[in-house]
Amino acid sequence: MSSPEHKQKIWNLIKDIKVGMLVTQENNESDRLRARPMSLVQDAYDGTLYFYTPKSDSKVYEIKNDRDVCITFSDPENQVYVSLTGKAKLTQDKDLIDKYWNAWASAWFKEGKEDPEVAMLEVKINKGEHWVTDENKVLQLYEVAKANIKEETVPDMGENEKFGN
Amino acid sequence: MSSPEHKQKIWNLIKDIKVGMLVTQENNESDRLRARPMSLVQDAYDGTLYFYTPKSDSKVYEIKNDRDVCITFSDPENQVYVSLTGKAKLTQDKDLIDKYWNAWASAWFKEGKEDPEVAMLEVKINKGEHWVTDENKVLQLYEVAKANIKEETVPDMGENEKFGN
Repeated sequence: MSSPEHKQKIWNLIKDIKVGMLVTQENNESDRLRARPMSLVQDAYDGTLYFYTPKSDSKVYEIKNDRDVCITFSDPENQVYVSLTGKAKLTQDKDLIDKYWNAWASAWFKEGKEDPEVAMLEVKINKGEHWVTDENKVLQLYEVAKANIKEETVPDMGENEKFGN
Repeated sequence: MSSPEHKQKIWNLIKDIKVGMLVTQENNESDRLRARPMSLVQDAYDGTLYFYTPKSDSKVYEIKNDRDVCITFSDPENQVYVSLTGKAKLTQDKDLIDKYWNAWASAWFKEGKEDPEVAMLEVKINKGEHWVTDENKVLQLYEVAKANIKEETVPDMGENEKFGN
């Protein structure tokens, strides 16, 4: 779906943003999309993202109905925006839970790793897109102004790349 | 769906973030959720969000198939996260296009307001949720540590409120 170099690029963009908004679909007929912040726990990315979750959480119920999710990462300060789309599944794999256990997780699960509620969402990313504006804001507004003056089609706003289907 | 005071609160959270990730649904059977950054154009919020878009953009096609969208706003620096869910529709209402016209819009539409591609997405928000951590990060890590030590159920991470159904 994405080369190792591209995965590294995506990781470099999202690792400092740290918290993504995980979008799931409720089962009702209308207004079914909802998002909530989820913290990255890993320190590298090979196409799968992991997040701790209580096993009985509503998002777990939602991914049982529909595994399609989207995770958005935004950093308004540096104007970095990433959309990742994939399939989520719940896991209670002990090795995974051990591997990523951290202070945050231990604060949320009072019985620690042995808490029967401790679970992880494993999200296999199939496609995505990112936008990076590598100019600072002053330059970027200049680009907008320049585009107006010269009647170029659109201003040069930086990098935008898709991957996957 | 939401009181005027609550709308004002949401507006205060998102107006400085400025760019939200608009999540739409492609018509294919799998991996259909995708997001892209969209700039706020308004200077107040009464339950509807507006964004400029080219009329022939893929997101316009997507909302014709399914009007359900989600917009996520994230500010990792200040740890503010907002999820808004609603119905999108395309409009080419001249008054609306005039009202919100700005330097950004004029940079993207080379023929100006009269460009036949100029359109807006009008998103009526029906429900949402926000998370705000009003402590600074040092204090917040302290909260996590404290929760570990005292075996409280979860750390006090700030405000989290839902509205709508």
